[in-house]
Amino acid sequence: MTSPTWHGGAQAVVTLTFDVDAETPILAAGRRYADHLMTMSHQAYGPDVGVPRILELLAELGVPATFFVPGWVAEQRPGLAATIVEHGHEVAHHSYSHRAPTTLSAAEERADFERALDVFVAQGIEIRGHRAALWDATRVTLELIAEHGLAYDSSLMGDDRPYLLEVADRSIAELPVHWSLDDWEQYAYLPSPQIGSVIESPRKVLEMWTAELDAMRHYRCLFNLCLHPFLSGRPSRLLALRSLIEYAQASGGIGFARCRDLAEAAHSDLSLPRRTPPAVSADPDVYPD
Amino acid sequence: MTSPTWHGGAQAVVTLTFDVDAETPILAAGRRYADHLMTMSHQAYGPDVGVPRILELLAELGVPATFFVPGWVAEQRPGLAATIVEHGHEVAHHSYSHRAPTTLSAAEERADFERALDVFVAQGIEIRGHRAALWDATRVTLELIAEHGLAYDSSLMGDDRPYLLEVADRSIAELPVHWSLDDWEQYAYLPSPQIGSVIESPRKVLEMWTAELDAMRHYRCLFNLCLHPFLSGRPSRLLALRSLIEYAQASGGIGFARCRDLAEAAHSDLSLPRRTPPAVSADPDVYPD
Amino acid sequence: MTSPTWHGGAQAVVTLTFDVDAETPILAAGRRYADHLMTMSHQAYGPDVGVPRILELLAELGVPATFFVPGWVAEQRPGLAATIVEHGHEVAHHSYSHRAPTTLSAAEERADFERALDVFVAQGIEIRGHRAALWDATRVTLELIAEHGLAYDSSLMGDDRPYLLEVADRSIAELPVHWSLDDWEQYAYLPSPQIGSVIESPRKVLEMWTAELDAMRHYRCLFNLCLHPFLSGRPSRLLALRSLIEYAQASGGIGFARCRDLAEAAHSDLSLPRRTPPAVSADPDVYPD
Amino acid sequence: MTSPTWHGGAQAVVTLTFDVDAETPILAAGRRYADHLMTMSHQAYGPDVGVPRILELLAELGVPATFFVPGWVAEQRPGLAATIVEHGHEVAHHSYSHRAPTTLSAAEERADFERALDVFVAQGIEIRGHRAALWDATRVTLELIAEHGLAYDSSLMGDDRPYLLEVADRSIAELPVHWSLDDWEQYAYLPSPQIGSVIESPRKVLEMWTAELDAMRHYRCLFNLCLHPFLSGRPSRLLALRSLIEYAQASGGIGFARCRDLAEAAHSDLSLPRRTPPAVSADPDVYPD
Repeated sequence: MTSPTWHGGAQAVVTLTFDVDAETPILAAGRRYADHLMTMSHQAYGPDVGVPRILELLAELGVPATFFVPGWVAEQRPGLAATIVEHGHEVAHHSYSHRAPTTLSAAEERADFERALDVFVAQGIEIRGHRAALWDATRVTLELIAEHGLAYDSSLMGDDRPYLLEVADRSIAELPVHWSLDDWEQYAYLPSPQIGSVIESPRKVLEMWTAELDAMRHYRCLFNLCLHPFLSGRPSRLLALRSLIEYAQASGGIGFARCRDLAEAAHSDLSLPRRTPPAVSADPDVYPD
Repeated sequence: MTSPTWHGGAQAVVTLTFDVDAETPILAAGRRYADHLMTMSHQAYGPDVGVPRILELLAELGVPATFFVPGWVAEQRPGLAATIVEHGHEVAHHSYSHRAPTTLSAAEERADFERALDVFVAQGIEIRGHRAALWDATRVTLELIAEHGLAYDSSLMGDDRPYLLEVADRSIAELPVHWSLDDWEQYAYLPSPQIGSVIESPRKVLEMWTAELDAMRHYRCLFNLCLHPFLSGRPSRLLALRSLIEYAQASGGIGFARCRDLAEAAHSDLSLPRRTPPAVSADPDVYPD
Repeated sequence: MTSPTWHGGAQAVVTLTFDVDAETPILAAGRRYADHLMTMSHQAYGPDVGVPRILELLAELGVPATFFVPGWVAEQRPGLAATIVEHGHEVAHHSYSHRAPTTLSAAEERADFERALDVFVAQGIEIRGHRAALWDATRVTLELIAEHGLAYDSSLMGDDRPYLLEVADRSIAELPVHWSLDDWEQYAYLPSPQIGSVIESPRKVLEMWTAELDAMRHYRCLFNLCLHPFLSGRPSRLLALRSLIEYAQASGGIGFARCRDLAEAAHSDLSLPRRTPPAVSADPDVYPD
Repeated sequence: MTSPTWHGGAQAVVTLTFDVDAETPILAAGRRYADHLMTMSHQAYGPDVGVPRILELLAELGVPATFFVPGWVAEQRPGLAATIVEHGHEVAHHSYSHRAPTTLSAAEERADFERALDVFVAQGIEIRGHRAALWDATRVTLELIAEHGLAYDSSLMGDDRPYLLEVADRSIAELPVHWSLDDWEQYAYLPSPQIGSVIESPRKVLEMWTAELDAMRHYRCLFNLCLHPFLSGRPSRLLALRSLIEYAQASGGIGFARCRDLAEAAHSDLSLPRRTPPAVSADPDVYPD
């Protein structure tokens, strides 16, 4: 009898993840932007127009997904998280306010982290995993994840396969991400706050992600795709996503999983490496502040 | 008998819009640029060379368009607005000075808004709609549109189909825009003031917009294309626009409309959602200034 | 008998121009960069490796070109300008130091302009035309061109066909340029001083310029291509330029000219528009400093 | 009998070089980033995941390479340099800390340079060549290379073929690099410290490098490719590299060499030009600080 593996025998595993940030990344850059109506409406498109279309697409194709939702967003749009769960998908922790943890004190980060948990408890949404705002995790982030008994984090980039992080006597499954599998660098553009530059064509993005999926099948990796409904919910980008999923389904040998299910499989995979969080010591005589 | 719809039965509606900004976005960055002759000539190309070619192209293809003209530009080039109207197109309000409303006080914005209206009244140009400079509308912008009885705004991004905005006891049709259907992010480049980075090929832009048009037909949307004569008036970009229009015409099921006509249809469409302007409340204990 | 035309009956005219800037744009950003050896060597590649290959390519294809050389560069590399002229090409004025005229006082600009003329007089190089450093011409620039009896300028963007500029009782032929026909936005990259972002593929650049050439034939324009030997002198970029020239030669109906010859034809073309330099008046009550 | 040539009769020579920077470029931007776990893990991917895959790929294809390793990285990962050498590749000097030499005093640069040499001596790694951090060499850099008897430098851009640099009575082979043959401008992206913009597709990068290889065969050049394991070690980028190498192998007439072997051939090639380091004198009356 063989022990269970994180990939369940698939050549590559796809986790479709949607960061439902809505207005939060902009407010984190300054609450004055609340008066910039175009900018606010640009962000609201995500939960209001993008998410329903995404849910429809996922249902049609029969694939599961994980939605990382800031607590603030779940609070502002009370039915949102429940609707996602009712469609069979996972809702996971994405901070309360979407401020970067590296810009917060430990106490601020704890308050933000726990406030989001409170929102989800109040809404009856069970949380099993976490992704840091801007992926910008600190050691405190990992300790909070461990302390609150979550099964996984999905913010780091040290590998392209899951691994186990040893934090404070507990083990967290790390489901690594990467900028090249994020729609933000391809599609995002706003003049104020200044975000992005040239807007890429969905054809280029589809071609790039398809190549990465093929290569990840070769190297047996986790294809952990990070999408934002306010970006990838736009019509031609959504059809490009449909093409990508259909390509993966037709390829064979590729599994689709919610992050929580993948994390469970990772915890059961005895061959998975166990690591400690990055702990780099930089000599002040060599490196500037 | 069926009630009228905003799309008139088309699968997608195309509004070709041209923001005839000329020198205004540069002067808004600093009037010292008036002495930078290359920069001024770069902008003047729009009304002086681009607009005549665009009018010729639209006539040849038999499609209507909307030209958003800052009052300052109409004032500086007295025959411009009238010529556009004589060609059967619409001239609409695009502020007086092209300064972003979010950078103005309410009094300054009102003065700027009404000064543009005065220019058009003096030129006998009837104004039915408005687009904020840089799309950067405030609540004041919407109130001014309502107060002056305009039929529509075209500055927000909360949807990709028209909807009705309830403002001060009146209803404004919102014809939403988006960065991905704007030629600025693809083509604009100036070193001082610093604008843009890499200049994209018209082939890429045509491919991207064609894909969005196809996808918008799938989702039955408004393809609200925003072009700048100083950018898209250049030869190969204009021929790419010609290809896009011909593609749309050959596809079938796609309507072309001036914004004012689309706004009128939207006001008559009883099924259209009625919304209030974005009103985001950002907690000062959470979000920085 | 028909009067002479600027295009001599061609559908489009190609002026191949090479701005032999060498180290000057970097030194203009700060003379401290003189100690940055990589950066200096990056720039020196232009005259040292790029120019000889370019001369060889032009000879092989039998096409003339114009080389805009800063006086400082001609001074530092004494044989450079003469070699270019011996190959049948034109050497033209490109300032002495490549500092942007908009950053200089009128006296500084005059000193810089005349110092370059002195260098070329000393080297026996006859100068007929001028291009401002960074194309960033001022009213002073045009007055200096007129005062010194040069036949043309090639710095402005208000058209894509030659026209005549009336300056101080004289007439200057303007041979307009544009960012989309400049290799700088496509290829340039340096971290310090920070220049450029993504480096584009010569295939994309060739495709874009070929499309513009075709479209300019349609609109009967001047294809005024601006190249930098330190950029376009690199192997695959040079072969892309070869492909472009061969495409133009094979297309038929396209003329090649040195700028001075084109300027002479422009002065003889009685149908050419006569304009005054851009003179934009920006109201200080409307526009900020 | 013919004298030996740097290219050994090949039409072009390929040096595959990998800058194993790991965390150093980020720490050089500020040691506070040591607490940014995502950023640190993004960099650690290079030596931890990228390098083993690269070694496997090179072994499979039977091509040699050169790994430029900062002393700090070799120190932090004790087995790394030895493993590279055991695979038949070269380990070369890439500073200790990856701080740009142009930001250091002469004494600081000397200390950094020699500290790296000490690390390699202690690990029994023989060093024959050097590449400056960020390629940002100073005159001091070249003097240190000469003083310590290294055979080559690979940081400058004044040519695309090897040449000899005369420094302090010694001769250094310069193996020139260029931004267009660097994966950093194509793939790198980080928000903090801010690096890069749009992330390019490996297909575009492969197409661009293949064209440059072909053109360099035409001009008989050194194709000195600079890759970073944390960037090019990602799955689809690595497969693009495999395609490039296979293309070069199938083309015929292309040699592969370690830098040290190429440098040795360069020193034996009597026809190679002998130059002095760039020494640009910038007049303080003309150029600003």
